[in-house]
Amino acid sequence: MTNINIGVIGYGYWGPNIVRNFFTAANCSVKMVADGRTDRLAQLAKAFPSVKGVSDAEEIIKSKEIDAVVIATPVFTHYPLAKKALENGKHVLIEKPMTSSVAEAEELINLASQKNLLLMVDHTFLYTGAIQKMKEIIDNQVIGTPRYFDSARINLGLFQPDVNVLWDLAPHDISILIYLIKKAPFSINATGVSHTRNNIENIAYMTVNYDSEFIAHFNCSWTSPVKVRQTLIGGDKKMIVYNDLEPSEKVKIYDTGFNHKTDEDRKMVMVDYRTGDIYIPKLSLQEALSGVANDFIQSIISQMEPLANAYLGMKVVQILEASQESIKNNGKEVKIR
Amino acid sequence: MTNINIGVIGYGYWGPNIVRNFFTAANCSVKMVADGRTDRLAQLAKAFPSVKGVSDAEEIIKSKEIDAVVIATPVFTHYPLAKKALENGKHVLIEKPMTSSVAEAEELINLASQKNLLLMVDHTFLYTGAIQKMKEIIDNQVIGTPRYFDSARINLGLFQPDVNVLWDLAPHDISILIYLIKKAPFSINATGVSHTRNNIENIAYMTVNYDSEFIAHFNCSWTSPVKVRQTLIGGDKKMIVYNDLEPSEKVKIYDTGFNHKTDEDRKMVMVDYRTGDIYIPKLSLQEALSGVANDFIQSIISQMEPLANAYLGMKVVQILEASQESIKNNGKEVKIR
Amino acid sequence: MTNINIGVIGYGYWGPNIVRNFFTAANCSVKMVADGRTDRLAQLAKAFPSVKGVSDAEEIIKSKEIDAVVIATPVFTHYPLAKKALENGKHVLIEKPMTSSVAEAEELINLASQKNLLLMVDHTFLYTGAIQKMKEIIDNQVIGTPRYFDSARINLGLFQPDVNVLWDLAPHDISILIYLIKKAPFSINATGVSHTRNNIENIAYMTVNYDSEFIAHFNCSWTSPVKVRQTLIGGDKKMIVYNDLEPSEKVKIYDTGFNHKTDEDRKMVMVDYRTGDIYIPKLSLQEALSGVANDFIQSIISQMEPLANAYLGMKVVQILEASQESIKNNGKEVKIR
Amino acid sequence: MTNINIGVIGYGYWGPNIVRNFFTAANCSVKMVADGRTDRLAQLAKAFPSVKGVSDAEEIIKSKEIDAVVIATPVFTHYPLAKKALENGKHVLIEKPMTSSVAEAEELINLASQKNLLLMVDHTFLYTGAIQKMKEIIDNQVIGTPRYFDSARINLGLFQPDVNVLWDLAPHDISILIYLIKKAPFSINATGVSHTRNNIENIAYMTVNYDSEFIAHFNCSWTSPVKVRQTLIGGDKKMIVYNDLEPSEKVKIYDTGFNHKTDEDRKMVMVDYRTGDIYIPKLSLQEALSGVANDFIQSIISQMEPLANAYLGMKVVQILEASQESIKNNGKEVKIR
Repeated sequence: MTNINIGVIGYGYWGPNIVRNFFTAANCSVKMVADGRTDRLAQLAKAFPSVKGVSDAEEIIKSKEIDAVVIATPVFTHYPLAKKALENGKHVLIEKPMTSSVAEAEELINLASQKNLLLMVDHTFLYTGAIQKMKEIIDNQVIGTPRYFDSARINLGLFQPDVNVLWDLAPHDISILIYLIKKAPFSINATGVSHTRNNIENIAYMTVNYDSEFIAHFNCSWTSPVKVRQTLIGGDKKMIVYNDLEPSEKVKIYDTGFNHKTDEDRKMVMVDYRTGDIYIPKLSLQEALSGVANDFIQSIISQMEPLANAYLGMKVVQILEASQESIKNNGKEVKIR
Repeated sequence: MTNINIGVIGYGYWGPNIVRNFFTAANCSVKMVADGRTDRLAQLAKAFPSVKGVSDAEEIIKSKEIDAVVIATPVFTHYPLAKKALENGKHVLIEKPMTSSVAEAEELINLASQKNLLLMVDHTFLYTGAIQKMKEIIDNQVIGTPRYFDSARINLGLFQPDVNVLWDLAPHDISILIYLIKKAPFSINATGVSHTRNNIENIAYMTVNYDSEFIAHFNCSWTSPVKVRQTLIGGDKKMIVYNDLEPSEKVKIYDTGFNHKTDEDRKMVMVDYRTGDIYIPKLSLQEALSGVANDFIQSIISQMEPLANAYLGMKVVQILEASQESIKNNGKEVKIR
Repeated sequence: MTNINIGVIGYGYWGPNIVRNFFTAANCSVKMVADGRTDRLAQLAKAFPSVKGVSDAEEIIKSKEIDAVVIATPVFTHYPLAKKALENGKHVLIEKPMTSSVAEAEELINLASQKNLLLMVDHTFLYTGAIQKMKEIIDNQVIGTPRYFDSARINLGLFQPDVNVLWDLAPHDISILIYLIKKAPFSINATGVSHTRNNIENIAYMTVNYDSEFIAHFNCSWTSPVKVRQTLIGGDKKMIVYNDLEPSEKVKIYDTGFNHKTDEDRKMVMVDYRTGDIYIPKLSLQEALSGVANDFIQSIISQMEPLANAYLGMKVVQILEASQESIKNNGKEVKIR
Repeated sequence: MTNINIGVIGYGYWGPNIVRNFFTAANCSVKMVADGRTDRLAQLAKAFPSVKGVSDAEEIIKSKEIDAVVIATPVFTHYPLAKKALENGKHVLIEKPMTSSVAEAEELINLASQKNLLLMVDHTFLYTGAIQKMKEIIDNQVIGTPRYFDSARINLGLFQPDVNVLWDLAPHDISILIYLIKKAPFSINATGVSHTRNNIENIAYMTVNYDSEFIAHFNCSWTSPVKVRQTLIGGDKKMIVYNDLEPSEKVKIYDTGFNHKTDEDRKMVMVDYRTGDIYIPKLSLQEALSGVANDFIQSIISQMEPLANAYLGMKVVQILEASQESIKNNGKEVKIR
């Protein structure tokens, strides 16, 4: 039986969750964790005495014992660490967002391809029962042709010192958009404000425009007194409300729709709308990160593409990069290549 | 005792509410109602047998008996009807939005001023217990310096055949913004989509930018499966959540805030946030439209400015007009004069 | 076409709603309204100028013109007024609860039967879209065998000076129980407290016991800071949550259940439970009282039994009477005949 | 510095939480854990390698090294284990409910007193931020004289094979009642139903009656499709709503009340009610079980009474025992000694 030896770089907020989930995944062993902070390594020793803690990521990257590396460090370090790991023949799982730029993402994708290594991004939300159920519903044409995607992810939360609120919070929702809606975005408009005099927006709004009659919108804030994590996905047949804060009734499917017809006499478009029953499917309660860990390991073994593959991760960065350009140019439209 | 004789033009959805509220207001009498539709006049005769129904608005506008006219007709008719009414020496109350353009609004304001007549706009929400309480809270510096205003007004609702969703729904929230926040907006970005092939957006998003560190955002939709009417207003001391769908607990004041300081060593801005108690004030339950009717009549009598004065109404149109230009130019920034 | 002439006795809180709904019902005309209070008659004249207002109920009861009488007065007057109306050959619709005692209810039922007149009770809730939908669901065996009915109807509300909170609020829920669940109650336990030194309970709790494995419970209060109107109805296959305060999603059907089996080794009963999807049916939005008015008129014409017939009304009084006896005897079990 | 050596008996659902919280408490060490199940001891070895696992509780009870014992086993074993532990000179913390009968509880209290040992019951809820805040509010007379306590704790939950739903769920709410309301209960009425043919009620209702105008009511169910954990506490000045399922806004204080006066003319009691502002205090987020562990250790050291003392634990059992008698006698009133 194949066994993949794992090294984890970064043992901050998310690191312990990563180690715990790879511990229980099949066909792999967590061997090493790297973190420059002594207190974090002490925490590791207490929680996972069998794992070797090291202060230098290089030790993992160059270790003969290690087959695959998980990178859970600040965004700007993703590219250099992943590059070096790939160069040293390791499969790589990177925390979201994948990189600080599309160019970096493309370079990593090419490198992984040349080396025949797996490169994957930890877009954890895609592995939740809620998103898996919505994927099934949308792919089965239950909602008809998708018309809009409207997401709010706001909270009184941890301000990041190096990236703005879109880079911090929107990757979740953008990855969900890309995964669920098979349409190519055309352009981005983004606006925002910084209340911290460091030019890093703590509130930002983004519209993703499409060629067809589809629109996506994102409302992100670190400065809301209430927590909201809600997405509306409307189709021409039905509409979905996804409220991630509901303990179990996260996904509601509304048999709601509208039709328009042209009133020739009055030269006007008239719209009828209807409401119907609502259906709340039962969702799998499996921990999403466990799905990420298993998908990473099994994709290495089977040489298949994982669900949260590097190409999806790159498309998320593409939208973030465009939003950055728009927000710094007063909301002007920025085309997606 | 002075008595103002009222004529109402338009007896559609809102007209009966207007007549009912002026009926119970002091110092005035509803004398005439004009509507071109026979069935509407029959409804009037049944509900208010003492009021004279006429099919032609001119009859009201030219009547010697009438002192003041209320205009509750489609937006594009506001300007010609109001102009004629002012020219005939009538005080005028116009439904929101005031006019289809800033130029029209300005002309009406000048005309009313020359004629020494009252011109007012029915921004009903300003007269609700919720907005009055928030005005008091913000004016008393309870929330400190305002930092953001974030509003969502979405529903599966009546599509308007002549104006987009911003012109239909946003006037409520824009009037609240202007009333509560004494800052001059600098520019607008707006995006949206039309699903009805008539180029009239049924979903639209608008950012209002300011010189200072303040931002306002509006999310309007006629195509949401759920109804949301929520506004967040953040200050540097406290934050308000205004949920108009709550039966009585509409306004919640959160003792929530954040502070930033520069960490000289790391050349970074560090942000601390705090949460505290929440306070839900009791609100007046008086019907808002009754407040509008009384303010209109008393402002005529006292020759004072009403709360929802024509200048505020014009500023609402200014933002709507700019949003229209932005939305038709792919979200580009449009400056407010 | 038959036309039933209606007289309404009592024009208090509910009277105007009754008049309005009989106005729009087919095959009937509201001719007279009796109320001893001059101001109420003035209100009537304003709202319904075509209806004759009288101060004495006898005038209606003895009028040759009147075919049917609606009694909307305090509970203790229901029996004498209904008796006299039946004796004078009028069909009768009584507000809930039907009478102050089972003996009175039985006497009225017998009298109506002898005179071949319709006697009906205004259990309005049975005519709501929510209850009609639940009736359909339960009759179609969707929830399987009913196991429990648990209702809370609490509020900071109007204290009645003559009847306790069970007589005031529970008739709604008891009528729903009797209508939905075809089982005969066996006995009652009730407890409560009076905070007003008049021995009239403002908080009360009632259990209705059955021979079979079914139980019903009622929690009623005039002294809750929050309004709750929620009923759980559990079956052995599915369970219903009915929340009357939801604007449209009032009825939720949970695919939730449990099974028990005996573990022979451990001499224990082991229980498994499961959760599944949730379904929220669209409900008719027709005003319930309009359904009551139409059922009353059509039942007179067709000589069929109405849904809220006198026998159901009497069974509601039976439970209330038993609850009264139990509550005054420290919660002791009182058998239902 | 004193150090108390702890042995834990029972490593089921709650045991790991107990071990974890005593691990982080000051002035104590967890030395041994007993559980008869090999797989539970394996779990212990993995999570807490420094703790000795033993299969026989006696080994802990008789160990010279152990100063204090925590008993987290099924209810019927509490008394024999606690008795033996006290006889062997150990301080004892017992899971709730304390014992299966008042007689057992009294014997343990006397034994602890003779031996000068601490006996405490793990009524964890008393140590939550919510209950601590409500205690402060009620003791400071903010709500005035308490008038009622109305609790619902329902869920689709684990059916216990040996005790009914009141013994399983109500100890939480009864302990809260006793802790917050300094009144002596007079009698109990309880009703319920068993759907599992083992005579163990899975739905039960209990009223606790008092001499004064105070009443408490408990609604407990293992068979509700929805989870409710809500308690209303009304005073003559203000009222509290405690919703334990709210993530942070658990306690709301309503400035709501009512007054009654006698209307001499009509020989009636008239009641006015009023509503006012609502206040939601910020709560401590400290883990409640950590408060239990610290109180146990510090009470041993200081020889002071802990908050969840054995006398409170015994009063909880008193109410449960009376409820059992009432429920088996068709809800008849059972006096509290």
